[in-house]
Amino acid sequence: MSRPLGVGIAGLGTVGGGVLRLLSANAELIAARAGRPIVVRAVSARDRTRDRGVALDGIAWHDDAAALAADPTVDVVVELIGGAEGPARALVDAAIARGKPVVTANKALLAVHGAALAAAAERAGIALAFEAAVAGGIPVIKALREGLAANRILSIAGILNGTCNYILTRMREEGRDFAEILADAQRLGYAETDPSFDIDGIDAAHKLAILAALAFGRAVAFEAVHVEGIRGISALDIGFAGELGYRIKLLGLARASEAGISARVHPCLVAQGAPLARVDGVFNAVVIEGDVVGRVMLEGRGAGAGPTASAVVADLIDLARGRATPVWGGAVSDAPSLPIGDHVGCYYLRLMVTDRPGVIADVTAVLRDQGVSLESMLQRGRAPGEAVPVVLVTHETRESAMRAALARIGALDAVLEKPAMLRIEAG
Amino acid sequence: MSRPLGVGIAGLGTVGGGVLRLLSANAELIAARAGRPIVVRAVSARDRTRDRGVALDGIAWHDDAAALAADPTVDVVVELIGGAEGPARALVDAAIARGKPVVTANKALLAVHGAALAAAAERAGIALAFEAAVAGGIPVIKALREGLAANRILSIAGILNGTCNYILTRMREEGRDFAEILADAQRLGYAETDPSFDIDGIDAAHKLAILAALAFGRAVAFEAVHVEGIRGISALDIGFAGELGYRIKLLGLARASEAGISARVHPCLVAQGAPLARVDGVFNAVVIEGDVVGRVMLEGRGAGAGPTASAVVADLIDLARGRATPVWGGAVSDAPSLPIGDHVGCYYLRLMVTDRPGVIADVTAVLRDQGVSLESMLQRGRAPGEAVPVVLVTHETRESAMRAALARIGALDAVLEKPAMLRIEAG
Repeated sequence: MSRPLGVGIAGLGTVGGGVLRLLSANAELIAARAGRPIVVRAVSARDRTRDRGVALDGIAWHDDAAALAADPTVDVVVELIGGAEGPARALVDAAIARGKPVVTANKALLAVHGAALAAAAERAGIALAFEAAVAGGIPVIKALREGLAANRILSIAGILNGTCNYILTRMREEGRDFAEILADAQRLGYAETDPSFDIDGIDAAHKLAILAALAFGRAVAFEAVHVEGIRGISALDIGFAGELGYRIKLLGLARASEAGISARVHPCLVAQGAPLARVDGVFNAVVIEGDVVGRVMLEGRGAGAGPTASAVVADLIDLARGRATPVWGGAVSDAPSLPIGDHVGCYYLRLMVTDRPGVIADVTAVLRDQGVSLESMLQRGRAPGEAVPVVLVTHETRESAMRAALARIGALDAVLEKPAMLRIEAG
Repeated sequence: MSRPLGVGIAGLGTVGGGVLRLLSANAELIAARAGRPIVVRAVSARDRTRDRGVALDGIAWHDDAAALAADPTVDVVVELIGGAEGPARALVDAAIARGKPVVTANKALLAVHGAALAAAAERAGIALAFEAAVAGGIPVIKALREGLAANRILSIAGILNGTCNYILTRMREEGRDFAEILADAQRLGYAETDPSFDIDGIDAAHKLAILAALAFGRAVAFEAVHVEGIRGISALDIGFAGELGYRIKLLGLARASEAGISARVHPCLVAQGAPLARVDGVFNAVVIEGDVVGRVMLEGRGAGAGPTASAVVADLIDLARGRATPVWGGAVSDAPSLPIGDHVGCYYLRLMVTDRPGVIADVTAVLRDQGVSLESMLQRGRAPGEAVPVVLVTHETRESAMRAALARIGALDAVLEKPAMLRIEAG
């Protein structure tokens, strides 16, 4: 068996602790699969006193994470600090500058600086591995970049944020509103104290930007992802969606067409029988459609110490074996990004209107004027003179027309709140 | 870009034709992902006249498949002939003897001779790749051998044969019997003229043997797989299973315990809400449970020209990039195989009995004597003196006890047919 692979780990929070424990608990198995032992030589973290469940005796401790890159006992730098800037970026830059391969779980860093980092890593001839950055323990990066590499990828659809999926699942099951379930999720540790990264869709958008770059062979383009979160989802809409045969899910969706590439993260209605509709709770799932393989779906835990450590150590085993893949998979495309206004699909609209004659006629006249045709309409109960919900489902229409119609509908006197608009997706 | 990778393909049936078309249609993309062009230099097949949808001009044609191994233009041999013996085996032996890497979709060859072939390939220092041998286009070999390599695999459960899943799905949806649906499936091309390899579970057992070897890091042991097919499944049992909240699926199941490894392929009852219960038609799916990652499920098309070619070409891209993995993943275990008699689980029994007093008392007395306890019993309708079905569901019990009880129950005068016994699995 060859010389051990020396690892330096920066960041010993949930994931870092998980990696330490996994490398220790399954050391023999990992060495057999890697062809040599994988040994932690050095670490860097803020808190020296916290118990990580593993003895750190004999492991060097660097106060400055970037010093890991200079440590001669470190062959591979594992970056688990997080964040697109600051010490995480400084460490990855330092490692690449020293010609040391990097394993990271940092989706923000890759989504924002991935193109420049990949170029630097390729110039240096080193690997930049990031299986853990998307969908935790599900080996989706490897599936896209290697397992399905013979395919022209047509589309990707995924549940990429466990916190949002957990909140939406509980809202549906319990019929309760967003704020209540969020508070409960925070109490239980399923949502952060500042939950905006998750619930505003940013985290899912980082991951989708990475998947889209791999799928379509082009530079990662986070700023081109259209992002909407789940703060606006109400128990009312989840209920109506259920009546219509749908579930509401936060999906990441990327699609290649002749015109270019669309990438968007937003809540949407998915038919109850569709594969992604049935993925509940904290689970993640990704459906990849390739031109020859058809649809492949991968499902599993998208976060947590164990699943994320599983992905980090899989990358280390690849490095130990000398298995290398270009950062973005090798294919290069310059397809343009499409704006959300170009999206064509079906829409769910829910209005709160004054229950009086003529309101529906006014609303439908606006839709007609914008060329939007209706598939169905749902109006429940009567309360003359008071607010009642009206739900409309459209046939396929262009987002720009839909938005123009909504602006006019929202301005009608009888429409009492900002209309709720959700896209309907195949899932 | 480096020198092209020269490929020799033996067998130009459905899959071989699919590989030819894929290498041609996506040539540019494949070259980008592989780092160099992948070019077919030579082929071997019985029928020179058949149209494969791709021009074969300039490609050498060998009547003897084994001659591909000796062809100096061939860097990699792709074996798509099939069968555990004969020309497929001769070709793979010849390729290994010449030090040429092999890509194969041949599950029978690997299940039966995989240990010897792997040893020979490793002595020769060459790759033996077989992503296409299990679950078609789903990259499950790569997931097990690389993506989840940091995990101790606890169990595998899969729908590994599309023909059986298609037949069972249609039997359930249409309430029709096995023979009828099989005949229809043969007419439609979903089942072979001689369907026994599929419907008797052999094909699924070949695949399960391969997955178990990878999962548990031990020599492939096809002969240790307990195999039952779906010929005995009746519309009656599918109906009763549905009433009890289950679907009947042919699963491949492998599990590691302290005592050893169990591997079995048989029809079983899976709760309707379980992930594998919802995989219908010709789709395949595999649930892998790892000690740190938890449960990961992969789903997609398990057969057909496109999906299988996708997997074959992914292996070629790995070879072109120089990515290599030991044939069985690198870990080595000598855990023993457990006999089916040691299986412990819940069972569904369906008896056809004469409808007269005392029959149920006799049956339940036998079960009690073998220590088998009942969870529920279902008896529908009365027909004094005639045959009626009785369905029993047991609590957890040992297979050996169950079998002893069934032998005695089958011998009772009032029991008119061989009892139907199906295991209940978590799925």
